[in-house]
Amino acid sequence: MRTLEVELGPRSYPIHIGSGLLARPDLLAPHLRGQRLVVVTNETVAPLHGDRLRALLEGQDVTWIELPDGEAHKTLATVEAILTRMLEARLDRGSTLIAFGGGVVGDIAGFAAAIYQRGIDFIQVPTTLLSQVDSSVGGKTGVNHPLGKNMIGAFHQPRAVIIDTESLATLPLRELRAGVAEIIKYGLIQDADFFAWLEQHIEALLALDPQVTTEAIYRSCACKAEVVAADERESGRRALLNLGHTFGHAIEAGMGYGEWLHGEAVGTGMAMAARMSEQMGWLQPAERERAEKLIERAGLALSPPPELTAERFRELMAIDKKVMDGQLRLVLLRAIGSAVVTGDFPPDALDATLPGSEVRDRGVG
Amino acid sequence: MRTLEVELGPRSYPIHIGSGLLARPDLLAPHLRGQRLVVVTNETVAPLHGDRLRALLEGQDVTWIELPDGEAHKTLATVEAILTRMLEARLDRGSTLIAFGGGVVGDIAGFAAAIYQRGIDFIQVPTTLLSQVDSSVGGKTGVNHPLGKNMIGAFHQPRAVIIDTESLATLPLRELRAGVAEIIKYGLIQDADFFAWLEQHIEALLALDPQVTTEAIYRSCACKAEVVAADERESGRRALLNLGHTFGHAIEAGMGYGEWLHGEAVGTGMAMAARMSEQMGWLQPAERERAEKLIERAGLALSPPPELTAERFRELMAIDKKVMDGQLRLVLLRAIGSAVVTGDFPPDALDATLPGSEVRDRGVG
Repeated sequence: MRTLEVELGPRSYPIHIGSGLLARPDLLAPHLRGQRLVVVTNETVAPLHGDRLRALLEGQDVTWIELPDGEAHKTLATVEAILTRMLEARLDRGSTLIAFGGGVVGDIAGFAAAIYQRGIDFIQVPTTLLSQVDSSVGGKTGVNHPLGKNMIGAFHQPRAVIIDTESLATLPLRELRAGVAEIIKYGLIQDADFFAWLEQHIEALLALDPQVTTEAIYRSCACKAEVVAADERESGRRALLNLGHTFGHAIEAGMGYGEWLHGEAVGTGMAMAARMSEQMGWLQPAERERAEKLIERAGLALSPPPELTAERFRELMAIDKKVMDGQLRLVLLRAIGSAVVTGDFPPDALDATLPGSEVRDRGVG
Repeated sequence: MRTLEVELGPRSYPIHIGSGLLARPDLLAPHLRGQRLVVVTNETVAPLHGDRLRALLEGQDVTWIELPDGEAHKTLATVEAILTRMLEARLDRGSTLIAFGGGVVGDIAGFAAAIYQRGIDFIQVPTTLLSQVDSSVGGKTGVNHPLGKNMIGAFHQPRAVIIDTESLATLPLRELRAGVAEIIKYGLIQDADFFAWLEQHIEALLALDPQVTTEAIYRSCACKAEVVAADERESGRRALLNLGHTFGHAIEAGMGYGEWLHGEAVGTGMAMAARMSEQMGWLQPAERERAEKLIERAGLALSPPPELTAERFRELMAIDKKVMDGQLRLVLLRAIGSAVVTGDFPPDALDATLPGSEVRDRGVG
């Protein structure tokens, strides 16, 4: 087991990572303040791993809530249903919520914890690779609105995160690859050594070698914690974590949410960002190639689906919430391990990155 | 004008109090970060005072949202409607929300600001006496759930609070008295000098003498800020602010929300707390009498309505959210200017405070 302490002053918390941690009540016990617990999970995770969590919580007063699976249920209505169940169970401010599932469960459940009686403790037990390396750090919680993803939410830090890598054994390959995309992202934006380590271990990671998996999750969380500690309330540096996300969100939205997994879209978005960075003369061709190569070895697509035209991309990127005051900002690469946010790029460089060339030929943009 | 600086580290903010402040753009300007504004107000306040705020914001890009009036609309559905309007107006994270109205508007709008894109800036312009002395400090925002008041919410500090005492001129007398109840509360829980000052100035306050009103609001906010600064996340000392609230919530709920104003119920609840404190031998009879006398001079009832029986009171108090782990805690007085929270009181003292004597006679409780 490895433990990373996320340093946030009075809201600091540990992330425990290892194989078999769901059999370790000692990791959970220090963080249970009150007598009552609520577990929020979903209909996919509960049958696969619910028994292990139930065994861990034996003897406690537990309210067990199973959500339907899928991003479509990441809505305010679902949060309201959770809050109603919690009130019916008379959970008070001293109660603790355990979010047990992937990123969608964590976002919904964390937000319910954030706004239940103005905030109660919560513990994350993420079960997908993506949520383990992404949602474990940063305190972001929230739901979607018909007019945009993650438009409703709050910052709410967990008391602890417990990552049992055994839960990855049941993860579909596509979801595993989507998680690896985010892991590659940390190497690209700020840790060239980690990127090089991933070039050595990517196949072992995809095969879920326990030590490699634990190490990859630990280093990913450490990278994210470093960024977030410097900028807890997302203004400057934290935006670097959005490498590949503006392109990626456009792919997700353009294909209809759920068609592409978030991580799959981010993987392709990172490849696009690498090519655009090369276009601008920032990223050396050899480094762009290393980036693309690793993304490809992870089983991710280097290009967006052909049905998404450049025009559609532009439309979709303009409503992305990273657009402030009307100016499109992108995260680009100066080198492997070094990203910057910029709103100052030649339109040509963006044109050359978007699918097809008809837009450039017509001189639009 | 008087200005109170609420000290909360990076989230410190000023409260400006005085007559005619809605004509002072210089007070607002330093707190407007982005280019877009949203004003949330209601159908009662807008016709009375909306023109002054519109004049103050002239030349800005303003989205104006008018809610129906009343606690019945303090729901998650209303918040969702606000968020939808904000998304339709393409407000981004740099936008600022202005809450313009009484406590209900402030609670709803503040919560919308707290969860819109995980939190945007907001400025409070409270227009009722209660909201000026209560909601200006503490950062509490939220809405009701069918199963309980204020069960959904967040802590979200405003960037500034602007209190124009002129807005009180249109306030119904009952609401004025309800606000004075909370002002008396600050004297009772922690400021004997302020209580004595109120004994001198209560009639001038009810007549809205500008200097007395500004002073009373300033000292009330200062009292609350002192308590909150010591305990921002409501654990220990902040609970003292609930003097009269457990009894008061029972009255509000028992009579049907909206029948008694919150402040009216708190006024009566404080008189009950004073009598219970005397029963326990904590408060001297002469001090209990001073407390009751001032509450009475403010035009507030000393006793709950006769239709609320002792049994009903008990029932209602048990679902109050100040009950932790099943034990009822009450705020009681050791002296004027000195309150304590206790879960340790003889059942007889509570019995003697609740209406009628049939419960005591039957030996129940």
